Amino acid sequence: MNDTLPQETLDPSDWTPLRRLAHRAVDDALDYLEQVRERPVWQPVPAAVAARFHEPLPRDGQGAERAYQEFREYVLPWQMGNTHPRFWSWYMGNGTALGALGDFLAAIVNPNMGGGNHVGNLVEGQVLDWCKQIVGLPPGSSGLLVSGGSMANLVGLAVARSAEAAVDVRAEGVAALPQPLTFYASVEVHSCAQKALELLGHGARALRKIAVDARYRIDLAALAAAVAADRAAGLRPCAVIGTAGTINTGSIDDLAALADFCRREGLWFHVDGAIGAVAALSPRHGHLLAGLEQADSVALDLHKWLHVPFEAGCILVRDRRAHRATFALTPEYLAHAARGIASGADWYSEYGVQLSRGFRALKVWLSFKEHGLDKYGRLIDQNIAQAAHLAELVRAAPALELMAPQSLNIVCFRYRGSGGAQQGLNALNQELLVRLHEGGQVAPSYTTLNGSYCLRAAIVNHRTRTSDLAVLIEEALRIGRELEREQSSAT
Amino acid sequence: MNDTLPQETLDPSDWTPLRRLAHRAVDDALDYLEQVRERPVWQPVPAAVAARFHEPLPRDGQGAERAYQEFREYVLPWQMGNTHPRFWSWYMGNGTALGALGDFLAAIVNPNMGGGNHVGNLVEGQVLDWCKQIVGLPPGSSGLLVSGGSMANLVGLAVARSAEAAVDVRAEGVAALPQPLTFYASVEVHSCAQKALELLGHGARALRKIAVDARYRIDLAALAAAVAADRAAGLRPCAVIGTAGTINTGSIDDLAALADFCRREGLWFHVDGAIGAVAALSPRHGHLLAGLEQADSVALDLHKWLHVPFEAGCILVRDRRAHRATFALTPEYLAHAARGIASGADWYSEYGVQLSRGFRALKVWLSFKEHGLDKYGRLIDQNIAQAAHLAELVRAAPALELMAPQSLNIVCFRYRGSGGAQQGLNALNQELLVRLHEGGQVAPSYTTLNGSYCLRAAIVNHRTRTSDLAVLIEEALRIGRELEREQSSAT
Repeated sequence: MNDTLPQETLDPSDWTPLRRLAHRAVDDALDYLEQVRERPVWQPVPAAVAARFHEPLPRDGQGAERAYQEFREYVLPWQMGNTHPRFWSWYMGNGTALGALGDFLAAIVNPNMGGGNHVGNLVEGQVLDWCKQIVGLPPGSSGLLVSGGSMANLVGLAVARSAEAAVDVRAEGVAALPQPLTFYASVEVHSCAQKALELLGHGARALRKIAVDARYRIDLAALAAAVAADRAAGLRPCAVIGTAGTINTGSIDDLAALADFCRREGLWFHVDGAIGAVAALSPRHGHLLAGLEQADSVALDLHKWLHVPFEAGCILVRDRRAHRATFALTPEYLAHAARGIASGADWYSEYGVQLSRGFRALKVWLSFKEHGLDKYGRLIDQNIAQAAHLAELVRAAPALELMAPQSLNIVCFRYRGSGGAQQGLNALNQELLVRLHEGGQVAPSYTTLNGSYCLRAAIVNHRTRTSDLAVLIEEALRIGRELEREQSSAT
Repeated sequence: MNDTLPQETLDPSDWTPLRRLAHRAVDDALDYLEQVRERPVWQPVPAAVAARFHEPLPRDGQGAERAYQEFREYVLPWQMGNTHPRFWSWYMGNGTALGALGDFLAAIVNPNMGGGNHVGNLVEGQVLDWCKQIVGLPPGSSGLLVSGGSMANLVGLAVARSAEAAVDVRAEGVAALPQPLTFYASVEVHSCAQKALELLGHGARALRKIAVDARYRIDLAALAAAVAADRAAGLRPCAVIGTAGTINTGSIDDLAALADFCRREGLWFHVDGAIGAVAALSPRHGHLLAGLEQADSVALDLHKWLHVPFEAGCILVRDRRAHRATFALTPEYLAHAARGIASGADWYSEYGVQLSRGFRALKVWLSFKEHGLDKYGRLIDQNIAQAAHLAELVRAAPALELMAPQSLNIVCFRYRGSGGAQQGLNALNQELLVRLHEGGQVAPSYTTLNGSYCLRAAIVNHRTRTSDLAVLIEEALRIGRELEREQSSAT
């Protein structure tokens, strides 16, 4: 039998060419980062390139060298652009070289972080301990690195409902609840909260969206009234989601007041801190996060303002027992052994959805050690100061209009030129945005506030220099005037 | 204002030292893989090393060089061991060098694969098209790369319940269903199916665990009886989960019969193919997957038998519209633009839980191109032949006992020695397993079948040579005898 068995492997028979290729890839990659400022922020994928991605399943291998060459020619040049100093779209980090090397090394050693006894668990444990220190949760809290804010919020809300439910909801399901659970957040809450409650089977209707004040913070009186009304209607208020940094404007709810309210009302206090919770590291703005340390659960994103490469989110839960009780399920093939590879008291798969889990902790661990958290705090302040500067530049330009108060690192504005009807301005600014992107110089994104379409610059960028912001203003003004000219010549 | 703003960055001012470090890391990493066979499979983390992972949040940075040095000394040596040729625990792939390089390059370009217009979407689209071709789903099916099998099954079941529910379950929740939904799978179904239904709010009770035949395949008559009984009780049967490769023994349900049954009964047919669906690539065993191509949704894992580094799972859904309708939610800040970075018809975030998504498609794309899928098919056959060989070796050793039929690449056996009571054999084999791990020569895992604790070798390993399996037999026999001697000298 032995003799007839083939002995193939995915490893090379000679490692030398692969080693050479890996060194070339490292040089190309570091060139890519070193020269990022010299490239356009973004450019569309040419049709001839796009056509290449419809070839059928490769039956025969073409080798590492040629596969890499195709990456270099057809993938590398047509990126989203969020590594660029003038990318301020949505809310994304840039990444770093050592962070990327961390992902490489994680994939080389390739442990499954779902469980077992190996050093990866210690690395993740330390990273989680550090995250607790950042937000002020006690050392006994539990935590889990996850894909990002959406999963972090899903896990947090799942724990909240398990902990607060009057029945064993894991066994019996949501329909067995004697009173339907309700959840509360401001109208500015990120859409992932609604997606989470839909997935959890409570339905979007279970999420009460509470009005905000002029600074886009949850209205506490309206919140109290909603909770009281639900109780009166026989429902069971379960959790309040505080937002530490709204996606639209970067606004931070009054977390201390929410913590008080939740304590008085016996509600779970969850904070979605994906956008802004790490600003707790900031020497100048950390005070905006007061109350965060009183949360029952906090969702964080490390691939945003801490610039760890995608994916790196984090959920922290004050009550470790409640957290584990929401997810742990230990069939016979996952039983923990006393010693050996399958030992270890706590397995991370018992704290979330994933059983197989990658070693994303490594890139975080390396990055935090490389830079130290004080530097991240200073960079957060730098971005906030840059946002304040951008808001000033907008205010100083009569053809531009600031559309929301700038409190954190997000600036919403539009081109108003000589003014005009809302609808016309919306269309003009939509076209202005895509021309900004197509120009390749700057990349803000967009949102709509009270019916007004806005350009939106979220400065989550360790490469942005203050002078880059002037380019955004110049380009917005130039294209805005160009569009007005086109309109007047068309009519 | 401009002048007073600091201008820090996470980039180095001089890239030369970081470049040197990256080259060193590549050499260390390739040495690590090239020499994997010379190391123990596993060794416990020394207490002195473990103690290092309790240092508090680093306030000051120590630089990339020192952070990397700490990785090299304290992290690299104490791994789980699944890169090793004699690791057969649970069900994990080894990874490959180019796969790891793919993760590095993905993190360098660092796109957010949640949406927008950039080449990453084309890469993921092509990888998904290839996955459809592997399992035989039509080109118009939808798909999504996810963290792994747990998430793939969660997404598949979420789509099933949305598609089959009589009400808008996203809006109204599970409690609004006029008839509770029920789901069906064999008792051998992976625990992630139960976790998914718990999370979705149906409760573990909604999962009917159906008996299996002697080959651990779902009993079709028992399934039909359960569905009929639930209908008679006023419940609404929703979906059948077929298992293409059970975690315990690698058994594959009769998928063609399940497809027929689901069609007749109007049920959603979901296949959990995390373990074995890619065996559709096998020239010799692909026929075992007949019926897979009729599934409504298929969960796959590419970080298992295709050896893509963690994490790489995949969900495919025949009805693209139903898939998107389960997850799409487009608030104003995620609206799609006509041109520019925010354009693109379909965004992957609209097909799953995550909004921010890493570029895991790249390592899959590179790996498939490097080796071609025919080679993966041959390697799958090689592992199955190795499992058959191992089963033969077990049968040839009177002190060992085969505990389940070997059909795929999983062999369950135990040391029975001169025999004895079940309980004694269970304790003996538990100790035998941890001594195997501690010996560092071989790493099977374990399960319990019909009350008998078994050693379990899941040969998902492109580095295993047939001669490695003899080491497992020798070591099991040696330690088994050692334990028997210890027992007899103790009594």
